[in-house]
Amino acid sequence: MTAIKHSAMANAIRALSMDAIQKANSGHPGMPMGMADVATVLFTKFMKFDPSKPEWPDRDRFVLSAGHGSMLLYSILHLTGYKDMSLAQIKNFRQFGSKTAGHPEYGHAAGIETTTGPLGQGLANAVGMALAERMAAARHGKQLVDHHTYVIAGDGCLMEGISHEAISLAGHLGLGKLIVLFDDNQISIDGPTDLTVSDDQLRRFQASGWDTQSVDGHDPAAVEKAIAAAQKTDTPSLIACRTVIGYGAPTKAGSAATHGAPLGDAEIAGAREKLGWDAKPFVIPKDILKAWRDAGKRGEKPRKAWETRLKKKSVDARREFKEFLDADLPQDFDKIVASYKKKLSKDAPKIATRAASQKALEVLTAAVPAMVGGSADLTGSNLTQTGIMPPVTAKDASGRYIYYGVREHGMAAAMNGIALHGGFIPYGGTFLVFTDYCRPSIRLSALMEQRVIYVMTHDSIGLGEDGPTHQPVEHVAALRAIPNVTVLRPCDAVETTEAWQIALENTTGPSVLALSRQGLPTLRTKHSARNLSAKGGYVLQEAEVGPRQVTLMATGSEVELAVNARAMLEKKKIGTAVVSMPSMELFAKQPAKYRDSVLGDGTVRVAVEAGIRQCWDQWLCPDGGFVGMDSFGASAPANELYEHFGITADAVTKQAMSILKARAKRGK
Amino acid sequence: MTAIKHSAMANAIRALSMDAIQKANSGHPGMPMGMADVATVLFTKFMKFDPSKPEWPDRDRFVLSAGHGSMLLYSILHLTGYKDMSLAQIKNFRQFGSKTAGHPEYGHAAGIETTTGPLGQGLANAVGMALAERMAAARHGKQLVDHHTYVIAGDGCLMEGISHEAISLAGHLGLGKLIVLFDDNQISIDGPTDLTVSDDQLRRFQASGWDTQSVDGHDPAAVEKAIAAAQKTDTPSLIACRTVIGYGAPTKAGSAATHGAPLGDAEIAGAREKLGWDAKPFVIPKDILKAWRDAGKRGEKPRKAWETRLKKKSVDARREFKEFLDADLPQDFDKIVASYKKKLSKDAPKIATRAASQKALEVLTAAVPAMVGGSADLTGSNLTQTGIMPPVTAKDASGRYIYYGVREHGMAAAMNGIALHGGFIPYGGTFLVFTDYCRPSIRLSALMEQRVIYVMTHDSIGLGEDGPTHQPVEHVAALRAIPNVTVLRPCDAVETTEAWQIALENTTGPSVLALSRQGLPTLRTKHSARNLSAKGGYVLQEAEVGPRQVTLMATGSEVELAVNARAMLEKKKIGTAVVSMPSMELFAKQPAKYRDSVLGDGTVRVAVEAGIRQCWDQWLCPDGGFVGMDSFGASAPANELYEHFGITADAVTKQAMSILKARAKRGK
Repeated sequence: MTAIKHSAMANAIRALSMDAIQKANSGHPGMPMGMADVATVLFTKFMKFDPSKPEWPDRDRFVLSAGHGSMLLYSILHLTGYKDMSLAQIKNFRQFGSKTAGHPEYGHAAGIETTTGPLGQGLANAVGMALAERMAAARHGKQLVDHHTYVIAGDGCLMEGISHEAISLAGHLGLGKLIVLFDDNQISIDGPTDLTVSDDQLRRFQASGWDTQSVDGHDPAAVEKAIAAAQKTDTPSLIACRTVIGYGAPTKAGSAATHGAPLGDAEIAGAREKLGWDAKPFVIPKDILKAWRDAGKRGEKPRKAWETRLKKKSVDARREFKEFLDADLPQDFDKIVASYKKKLSKDAPKIATRAASQKALEVLTAAVPAMVGGSADLTGSNLTQTGIMPPVTAKDASGRYIYYGVREHGMAAAMNGIALHGGFIPYGGTFLVFTDYCRPSIRLSALMEQRVIYVMTHDSIGLGEDGPTHQPVEHVAALRAIPNVTVLRPCDAVETTEAWQIALENTTGPSVLALSRQGLPTLRTKHSARNLSAKGGYVLQEAEVGPRQVTLMATGSEVELAVNARAMLEKKKIGTAVVSMPSMELFAKQPAKYRDSVLGDGTVRVAVEAGIRQCWDQWLCPDGGFVGMDSFGASAPANELYEHFGITADAVTKQAMSILKARAKRGK
Repeated sequence: MTAIKHSAMANAIRALSMDAIQKANSGHPGMPMGMADVATVLFTKFMKFDPSKPEWPDRDRFVLSAGHGSMLLYSILHLTGYKDMSLAQIKNFRQFGSKTAGHPEYGHAAGIETTTGPLGQGLANAVGMALAERMAAARHGKQLVDHHTYVIAGDGCLMEGISHEAISLAGHLGLGKLIVLFDDNQISIDGPTDLTVSDDQLRRFQASGWDTQSVDGHDPAAVEKAIAAAQKTDTPSLIACRTVIGYGAPTKAGSAATHGAPLGDAEIAGAREKLGWDAKPFVIPKDILKAWRDAGKRGEKPRKAWETRLKKKSVDARREFKEFLDADLPQDFDKIVASYKKKLSKDAPKIATRAASQKALEVLTAAVPAMVGGSADLTGSNLTQTGIMPPVTAKDASGRYIYYGVREHGMAAAMNGIALHGGFIPYGGTFLVFTDYCRPSIRLSALMEQRVIYVMTHDSIGLGEDGPTHQPVEHVAALRAIPNVTVLRPCDAVETTEAWQIALENTTGPSVLALSRQGLPTLRTKHSARNLSAKGGYVLQEAEVGPRQVTLMATGSEVELAVNARAMLEKKKIGTAVVSMPSMELFAKQPAKYRDSVLGDGTVRVAVEAGIRQCWDQWLCPDGGFVGMDSFGASAPANELYEHFGITADAVTKQAMSILKARAKRGK
C-alpha cells in the first residue's frame, strides 16, 4: 500500500469520528484522530480477524482501553465490514438504542471485545484475555490457539492504579502475546500531562519485565516495524506511540480541547482541508472503502485454514475443543451437586463456609474443567485452591490456579477478560472487605453479564481481631446494590454448595459468595435435592408449637442465631419460623405469592445479619425489627464482638417479644 | 551506641511483638521482627518526635503502611515512652477496648498517625502528609514547618494499584521529604513473592522520579547511611531494606508462616535463644528500656527550640499559625453562607449543582483559607477550582489547587493524609461513578473521622450520552451504606451551598456531595437563613389545596420532578407535600417527632430518585411507591433517558394516584 493510501485510510477514521461526534453533539474526537494512523497499521497489517465471523475463537483480540475514543473502534468495525456496524449506527452515535454507545459496550455489536470507559479496565481485561489464550493454547495446542491481544491505552489508563497491577501481573506471567499501544499524546483532560505526571512510562514497563519501544505514531512504517518486533518477543510489549491528539484539527490539534468535546463545524471544515479529505460527512470514497474492506477480508484465509485444521483433528479432540469453548456444566451437574449435598446433610459438619466452599470446590473443579481459580494473595485464607489445580506460571499455563498477588482490582478485571475470552469460568478470592478495592471491575462483570465468581471470605465481625478495617459492615448491602450482581451469603456447608451451583449456572452475570471465617454448624440436616437457595430465601424451620406468629430472617452466620432465638420463642409457646435468605436478589425475583408465604403475612418480622439494615427494610413491615450493625466493628475476639454489638439470639428474641407486646397493646 | 546495644534495642521490639501476638493468639509477627533493625535506626537516629508532646505540629510523621505489623509501631511507642502505650496495652493486644487494635487505629493512641491495614493506603496517606508539609512550609516558613514523612511499606503495599498512584504523584510533585522504607523480605501471604511478582521495584520508583537505594535491612550502619543520604535529596526516596521476615525465629524465619500467625511457644523460646534475649514476656531489661526512653527524649530539645521560635514570632504570625493549625471556620461563617444564600434565592439561577458548587466555592475558599481543592483530572467537569486557587506544583507549594491526575484512589488517600496532617480542609473531585475507584479511602476517611470532602459530579443518568459505565445508579445508596459518611445530594444552588456548609462544619467525618451535570432550577426561592439541609430532609412545599394526602420525597435533580408532580396532584385537589431529602443520614438522626411531621403520618408516600430503591424503604410505608432505577443506564441524551426509564413527574403522579385508589378500595 502506498503512503498516500495509508493516510487516506487513516483519514477515513478521522472523518467518521469527527462527523459522528459532531452530529451527536457529544463525544471525544481527539484520541480517534490521534491514533488513526496506528490503528490503520494494526488493522490492515497485523490484526487477525474476520468480520464475517466475529466469533472465530482464534481471532486476535483488540481492546480499546481508552474507551472514550469509541469512535475509533466503531469506525474500524464499519470500515472493515462488520455487518453490525452499519453507517446508520455510526450516524446514530450516542443515541438511544444504537449499537454505538458513548463508550464501547460488550454485547452491543460484534467486534467489541469488552466494555470500557472507566480507565485502566480494558488494559487489565486484556491481561486476562492474553492469559486465557496461553491457558487455552496449553490445553489445545498452537494449531488451534495462537492469537494476540492488542490494547490501545492512553495516559489516563496508565495513571490509574489498576494499570500497575495489570502490567506487573502480565510481566510476571510472561504474557508475550500481549501488545499495548500507548497513545502517548501528553494531553489529559486537565491539560498537558506534565501538569500531573512525570513518569517515564517505558522505564516503568521495563521494571515489570516488558519490552518497550517508542515510535512516531504518525509514521506508519515505524509503527509497523515496532509491532512486528513486539510480536517476536516473549515478554509483553509496550509501544509508546507519540501522537498529536486531534491530529488534523487545524487550530485545536495538540490541545485538551479536542479530548472530550465535538470539534465544531469550523474546525471540522478546517480539518477536511488540512487532511485533504473532501468527502461529505459519512461518505467514504469508493476506493478507500474498498481498501478497508479488503483489509477486513485478509482474515478469511487464516480463518478457513484454522477451520480446516480443526476439521482434521480427531473426533475426540474436536469434541473436547467444542466443550472447551462452550464452557458448559456437565450433563449430570444436578446429580453431582445433589449427591454431595446429601453427604453433607448426613455428616453435618461444623465448618466455616469458606472451608465448606473449598470442599465443594474439590467436587466442582473436578466436574467442571472450565473452572480456573485464584486469589489475591490470600489462598490459605480464601481456600480457593483445590488439589487438582496446579498453578499457572510463566513457564507452564496448563494449570488452573492463578496466584494474582496483592492485586484485587487487577484480578477482578483480568477475570472479566478471561470470561470474555471464552473457554473458562474464572473465580477469584480476597477478603469481603476488599471488594471495595475491585468494585469497578465487579460492576463491569455485571454490566457485561459475565459469569465471574467472586469468593469473598471473612465476611463480618465474625473474623475477629483483625478489626474494623477488615470487618465488612456495609459490603454485602453495597454489593446487593449493584444491578445484576447475585450476592450469596450461605449459612452452612449445604447452602454453600447450593451457592456454588447457582453461581456456576448463572451465565448472565457475576456472583459474589460471602463466606465466614468462623466455623458454622450444618443447619440443613434434612437433605433436599432441590436447590433451596436458588429461590433466594426459604423457610428453614417452620413454626411448630402453634400458628406462626413470628418470622425470623437471617443470612449466613446469623441463621444459627435465628435458629437459637426460635428455640427460645417456641419454648414460650410462640410459633416461630426461621427464614434463611442467602440471596436477596433471587428472592426478589420470586412470585409475590411465594415470597409472602415465606415471609408470613401479618407475622412479626425480625431480621438479623451482622451488617447494616439498609437492604432489609424491603422485607420488614413497619414494626419489623432488626438486629445488626450500625457502626464500624472493633478489634477483639469474634465472640466478644457479637456480644458487644448485641448480635445475639437473646437480642433477636427480645425484639420479637417487644414487637408482639406492642401489637397486643395496639389491639392487633 | 555500640552495635550490641542496637541489637538489644531491636530485640526489645521483637520480643514485645512475638509475645503480645502469642498472648492474643492472633497477629502478624513476621514483619515487626523483620523490620526491627530498620525501625530502631529510624527512631533512635532520625525521627523527630517527642512522646511527651505527641501533637507537636512540627514532628516527623511515621506511617506504618504495612498495618498488619502493628506490633512494630506499638512496641516503639511503648519503648520510647508514649504514655498512651503502657505495657498493659501491649498485653491487651487485639482485645476488646484496648488501644492496641489488630491494625493501628488513628485516634486510639498518640503516635498513631493514620489507620492502616488495607494495603497501600498508608503509603498514599503519607504522600498527602508530605504534601501538606510542603504547603504548610510554603505558608509559614521553614522555621516553623520542617519535618519528614517516613513510611514502612511491604511487598503487598507495593503490589497494590494505589501505590502506583501514590508514587507517581509524589515523584511529580517532588516531595523530597518523603522517605519510604520498603520491607523487602520477598515473602507475601501465599509464599515467596516470586510466586506472584517480578517487578524491579527500584527501577519502578526511578521511573517516577524517586531516588532509590538498596541496603541490608539488618545492618544498622548501612540503614543509617541510607536514611541520611535520602534526607539530602530533593526527590522522594525509596530505601529497599532486604530483610528476613520473622528474623530471629529459629525455624520459621524467612517463611510465610511468620507472616500472619502467632509463632507458637516453641518457636518463641527458640527465638529467645537465637536472639540472646532471656527476659520474660513483657519485661524489658532496665538498661535497654532506658536506652529507648532516652531515644524518645531526643525530641525534647528540638521541640522546645521550635516552641521558642514560635514564641519569638510576631503576634500576628503566631495567631496566623494557630488559626492554620485549628483550621476553623471563620467566626462569621453562618452570616457569610446566609448572605450568599439570600442572593441565590433572589437571583434564582437555573444552574447545574456542580456549577453552583463552584460558585459557592468562590465564596467559601475566600472565607476559609484552610480549604485546598483538587480533582482527578476532571477540573473542568467537577468545577472544583476557583479564581483564588493557584496550582500546587513541584516548584511552588503556596497554591491551593492540586491536579491529582487520573488517580482517584491516590487522591482520596492523599486527602486523608492532608487532613490527618492538620492545617487543611481538603476537597477533591471526580465523577460520582468513580467513587467505586476510591471507596476504600472514603471508608477510611469515615473510620478515622476525618473532614475530607468528596465533590462527586455527573451524578445520574442525567449525564446522558457517556452511558452506563459513567452513570451512577447504585452509588448514592452504596455511599450511604458506609457508616459515618454524610452523603448530600442537593436539589439546587441554595441546597448546594447548604451542603457545603454542612460538609465544612462536619469535623468528625467525610462528606460526599453528589452533584448534577445538568442545569436545575432554583426551588429554594424563599430565603431561609437557617440551614434546612442540615436536618437531612424537610418540607419544601406543603399541601395547599387541602389536608396533606400525599407526600412526595426526592433528592437532587428529582426534586424538580416531585415539585411538578405536586402541581399535577394539587390540580386534582389532592393535598400534596414535597419533601426534599438531601441527606438521609442527617434525617435519620433527627428526633422521630420531626421526621414524622416531615413524612406525614398516614399519608401516601412516593419517593423519586434517579437511583435504586435500596435506601428508600426505610421512609416508605408498606404501600409506598418508588420511581427510580433498577438497572444500569444507557447511552443517549439525558432527557430521552429520563423518559425511557420512566422517571418523570407523570410517573410519580400516577403512582400516587394508584396508591390512593388502592387505599380507597381497602376502605382506608
